[in-house]
Amino acid sequence: MEKQPADSVGIVKTQYFTFAEAPNEFILERGGRLGPVTLAYETYGTLNKDKSNAILVCHALTGSAHAAGYFTDDDIKGPKKNTGWWDLMIGPGKAMDTNKYFIICVNVIGSCYGSTGPNSINPATGKLYGMSFPEVTIPDMVKTQKILLDYLGINRLVTVIGGSMGGMQALEWALQFPDIPKSVIIIAASAALSAQEIALDAVGRNAIKMDAEWKDGNYAPGTKLKGLAVARMVGHISYLSEEGMEKKFGRRLEDPAFASRVGEFEKSFDNYFAVEGYLAHQGKKFVDRFDANSYMYITKAMDYFDVDLKYGGGSLTKAMKRVKAEVLMVSFSSDWLFSPETAKEMVQALTLNNKDVSYIEIESIHGHDAFLLEKKTVAENKILGQAFKNFLANIK
Amino acid sequence: MEKQPADSVGIVKTQYFTFAEAPNEFILERGGRLGPVTLAYETYGTLNKDKSNAILVCHALTGSAHAAGYFTDDDIKGPKKNTGWWDLMIGPGKAMDTNKYFIICVNVIGSCYGSTGPNSINPATGKLYGMSFPEVTIPDMVKTQKILLDYLGINRLVTVIGGSMGGMQALEWALQFPDIPKSVIIIAASAALSAQEIALDAVGRNAIKMDAEWKDGNYAPGTKLKGLAVARMVGHISYLSEEGMEKKFGRRLEDPAFASRVGEFEKSFDNYFAVEGYLAHQGKKFVDRFDANSYMYITKAMDYFDVDLKYGGGSLTKAMKRVKAEVLMVSFSSDWLFSPETAKEMVQALTLNNKDVSYIEIESIHGHDAFLLEKKTVAENKILGQAFKNFLANIK
Repeated sequence: MEKQPADSVGIVKTQYFTFAEAPNEFILERGGRLGPVTLAYETYGTLNKDKSNAILVCHALTGSAHAAGYFTDDDIKGPKKNTGWWDLMIGPGKAMDTNKYFIICVNVIGSCYGSTGPNSINPATGKLYGMSFPEVTIPDMVKTQKILLDYLGINRLVTVIGGSMGGMQALEWALQFPDIPKSVIIIAASAALSAQEIALDAVGRNAIKMDAEWKDGNYAPGTKLKGLAVARMVGHISYLSEEGMEKKFGRRLEDPAFASRVGEFEKSFDNYFAVEGYLAHQGKKFVDRFDANSYMYITKAMDYFDVDLKYGGGSLTKAMKRVKAEVLMVSFSSDWLFSPETAKEMVQALTLNNKDVSYIEIESIHGHDAFLLEKKTVAENKILGQAFKNFLANIK
Repeated sequence: MEKQPADSVGIVKTQYFTFAEAPNEFILERGGRLGPVTLAYETYGTLNKDKSNAILVCHALTGSAHAAGYFTDDDIKGPKKNTGWWDLMIGPGKAMDTNKYFIICVNVIGSCYGSTGPNSINPATGKLYGMSFPEVTIPDMVKTQKILLDYLGINRLVTVIGGSMGGMQALEWALQFPDIPKSVIIIAASAALSAQEIALDAVGRNAIKMDAEWKDGNYAPGTKLKGLAVARMVGHISYLSEEGMEKKFGRRLEDPAFASRVGEFEKSFDNYFAVEGYLAHQGKKFVDRFDANSYMYITKAMDYFDVDLKYGGGSLTKAMKRVKAEVLMVSFSSDWLFSPETAKEMVQALTLNNKDVSYIEIESIHGHDAFLLEKKTVAENKILGQAFKNFLANIK
């Protein structure tokens, strides 16, 4: 047994919960039906006797239920590739202190990390759903999480927290189930995507659809779709700020030797500049870990998300009237995907309704990526962790 | 014969000039060799006796030599789809007055509108060049234009003018042949692409390369590549401003009937939002008129463009020392591809060298597209045309 870091939740195991078994079905917001539905989830810490110490962590577009800890001893001593995606924030003594809180993270439906999605077997046909999977929405994701909480006997949450699509889920929680979360923490998110954001998602989906290997979604499991790599490249441009990209790559060459090897045509048309090599690398890595159809469904769910329309008849201010939770809103100065302006609009709509809202804009050149745990974002995450601690300590 | 508008240059004919015929070759900046080289070009107005009234107009990424006038009578009475791309600016009494100036526009090498490019026959093999075409650069484009001017007996230009990649050529003229243009007009351009701009180009090229129909560039002529459509979609996002997209599309649905037809899965996964329909339309239109390999070569030429490195050993200020032409620099307030900041850096570098430079930042929500002739950009083009007139009237 390897020695675990003292502030780690240690070895964890993903759990599975299944509902809507035949003859029942789960009815989705856009009219589809699904059954049975399985949710992959993880928990850290201990649920207290009156079940009042639970925190729900919501993941972003390509995340999983594995938010903290390790799966095996190898993860601890080895390259730690299976460390939870928010391990820095969740553990004994950390911002989300597992000595105090019971933390739950659920893989969203439509994803490919254990919850029911297009990659699952359709019991009616015995085959993969593929593109016959029904459309899912952010409200659907939240509804399934509520069903899991009911199963766990939890009817009150200290907070719901998440970044990017996780932040959308946190907001949706405060609107769909206003009496359950005492607070929500919304990081680098939006109440509805702008035309530009929808356009970026649409380019990604088109890149997948035009890949001959995609075959209308009926590709063999494990097929590595180049179209998904292109989609991820587009994504990465939107996750970084122009300033951050300039600082990290500028016009640096992928291989300085290229400069003296003009004429080596193929190579230079591949990745001449470092930024091209970076995108290619990110694309390749992503194809190894994510599913193209899940990418289609989940980006579409983000596009559909429209709090103004669903809860306010077109008015964000009217929509926010429903909120009962205390809100902590966080944005990053150079995030052009979900910009500080977007966050401020939500803060303003909450304020106009006399809601309990705090807002912090964290200075960063790392754009939307600033909320991720990376070497470059240590400073942002330090502030973020402290903001969580302060906020959680003061929830009424 | 249809009646022509009084301020039109009327029916025009594209001309062709061929040089570097065997045994000669044109040696390219990055080491490739090409011969013969054909240039498609058009001229409007009359060259005066001392050949001192010539203006060179340079086109952008996907432009052609057809900058003004019509090809047939049908263009005049009909939908005018063959009207020159800068017809509003070029003609009798217009900003570039053909009663006064002799105006030349040349299709860049590497393009697919008549000049030698990957779509041309390689005389050595009798087959299309495809991706065996040598790499071209902006300095190469300018050098071929100089060879054409020599053939026409023109050794002094009133101005070289262009937007986007056309502006890069105008700048390159002032640097490579400082004694030829008396002035240059650089619109919505840059002295070197940023990492973000290279990244956007790289996504486009990757989308083409991953299209199974591309076949390493050996597709049959006329093949409509979906990858090229995806590349164009990415381009369009960068040509519009976020504000402009929001105003034009917002979250409007492509077909309002979609809203009441949830469950019609295929349709909604196609183009649910209006902005998706717009991108798809632009992609399709583009594939009908442009060549995928030319797109690869010309975007790469833009990526390679680096005035700082080529002429200043890494310093833009040092590079600008060579300039002798009067410079008019133009940018658009919401252009995030070639932003006002980029233009101001060039203006500053020129100013530090005591060069004769004027700068105008035109207020617009239409982003990089503001310099194009479209219904939405009437206001911008009015200012632009007036700026050209004023500038041209005062050239020493």
